[in-house]
Amino acid sequence: MTRTIVASATREIIIGFDQPFCVIGERINPTGRKKLAAEMIEGNFDTVIKDALEQVAAGATMLDVNAGVTAVDPNETEPPLLVKTLEIVQGLVDVPLSIDSSVTAAIEAGLRVAKGRPLVNSVTGEEEKLEAILPLCKKYDVPVVAISNDETGISMNPDVRFAVAKKIVERAADYGIKPHDIVVDPLVMPIGALGSAGQQVFALLRRLREELKVNTTCGLSNISFGLPHRHGINAGFIPMVIGAGMTSAIMNPCRPQEMEAVRAANVLNGTDPNCTNWIMTYRDHKPAEGGHAVAAAAAPAGAGGRRGGRAARAGVARAE
Amino acid sequence: MTRTIVASATREIIIGFDQPFCVIGERINPTGRKKLAAEMIEGNFDTVIKDALEQVAAGATMLDVNAGVTAVDPNETEPPLLVKTLEIVQGLVDVPLSIDSSVTAAIEAGLRVAKGRPLVNSVTGEEEKLEAILPLCKKYDVPVVAISNDETGISMNPDVRFAVAKKIVERAADYGIKPHDIVVDPLVMPIGALGSAGQQVFALLRRLREELKVNTTCGLSNISFGLPHRHGINAGFIPMVIGAGMTSAIMNPCRPQEMEAVRAANVLNGTDPNCTNWIMTYRDHKPAEGGHAVAAAAAPAGAGGRRGGRAARAGVARAE
Repeated sequence: MTRTIVASATREIIIGFDQPFCVIGERINPTGRKKLAAEMIEGNFDTVIKDALEQVAAGATMLDVNAGVTAVDPNETEPPLLVKTLEIVQGLVDVPLSIDSSVTAAIEAGLRVAKGRPLVNSVTGEEEKLEAILPLCKKYDVPVVAISNDETGISMNPDVRFAVAKKIVERAADYGIKPHDIVVDPLVMPIGALGSAGQQVFALLRRLREELKVNTTCGLSNISFGLPHRHGINAGFIPMVIGAGMTSAIMNPCRPQEMEAVRAANVLNGTDPNCTNWIMTYRDHKPAEGGHAVAAAAAPAGAGGRRGGRAARAGVARAE
Repeated sequence: MTRTIVASATREIIIGFDQPFCVIGERINPTGRKKLAAEMIEGNFDTVIKDALEQVAAGATMLDVNAGVTAVDPNETEPPLLVKTLEIVQGLVDVPLSIDSSVTAAIEAGLRVAKGRPLVNSVTGEEEKLEAILPLCKKYDVPVVAISNDETGISMNPDVRFAVAKKIVERAADYGIKPHDIVVDPLVMPIGALGSAGQQVFALLRRLREELKVNTTCGLSNISFGLPHRHGINAGFIPMVIGAGMTSAIMNPCRPQEMEAVRAANVLNGTDPNCTNWIMTYRDHKPAEGGHAVAAAAAPAGAGGRRGGRAARAGVARAE
């Protein structure tokens, strides 16, 4: 059984097919968040602290930490800022961290200060990346996210993306890194632009699990890019990728609809034994909060499922 | 490609792997609805009419019609009441109907008056049922729901349930009924009682699709029986069964959360081309309605996904 172990100073988490889905909180990332970038440049970590606490309270399994505030001389500025951010976050919460940077020097600086066993985010199939990141992962004995693109960009052909993932796993093996320490991101395309994006990723996830025997992740919200009511698409996508074998995602745990989908999929996938987490979370849930009103879909009062009609007739109720 | 054709007098629907998920509205069923049963006995069809209109407005693809108001002499009372109910419903809405009864005489009476090509709900693997229902399906050239239980009851072993489904498909073939006119219900157990209920049904659905090449259905809400916030479990279950190959379900379309999951899964499964139905339904959706507040999960204002951070970095945005 594939088990990727990540850890903070005090807490170990296993990413695996038989484990609850690993939610990697994405919020601590200044990419596209101008205000956060400006704050971090000024040495103001108030939002970082708020985002760390809120994401853990909302149920994040791990936190991704990115300090890419500027494209100007990132080799100089990003390492110390990432170190500072990591130190603040790991001093505040006890979940394992993901060290997220496209700057190799920042990843190495992060690895020097991170406690436990962080996840490196990321390596790609690009030769330069493979040669820079894999030795670091071996040296610090840490797992790494492998993104399925290379020098030619991102292929629209999922077979090519699978081949890139396979190449990374093989190259990692050359460095003495086991497949269970590679978490492949098969790359999720926006379904509004590519109608087969869902079916592509479901098929890729099954192959990655069965043929390469690796854990998997993705930037979850990419799937809904450009569509209205993105959270509804995301919340439908989560159970489908979990059903197809995905074991983690980089996502926003502060969205209740998405986290509800994660918790439901854990129940249905058999990784929430006795539904304990579900029951603890929702035992006081008020039915009135359920669902989203759509103009044409007036829910009659008390329309609470079929009340066992079919189950009673076919005798399913006896199973209890 | 497996295609089950159902029709009303004016409208044909295809149930199939490449079609939008077929939502069979379950509401017109007095089982467990004492008030509805009392009304129907009195010849009052106000609730039936209301349920028919609301379910179609909410997006039902078909409507199930059941008139099983009493266990006392159903062979006498149920046929005329089912006929009356079917006539009212098919005079009111133009979706195809499912004739739902455990009384053979009621099914035959229903088949005589139903317009188009209704679905018969249901046959089981019981010898008596096979011999009573299959000749009717052949005679009226209609598809049938095949429930995977037999004289021995419902097996907890999914291999046995598969074998029962296979037996029904083979027996139907003896009567000249094709597999594409059998819609198998693999039987969904409550996950609160049987932790492997989800994994069982996902595996069964794949086998039914790949080995028997049949369409499938289930009484959807059985999965969440006994759990708090059942709609959240149901809404997670829908994308997972659709991902595993299920093509229809008997469910309550008046629950917006479940219907949102159906619509999202259609987008992700490639059966909502260009996301047209999703966009039409949710283009005016207000973000504030999204999700369900859970005490610990305070959503920060404007926490609307990662805004393309990973997508932008990895170049996914170029796909648009």
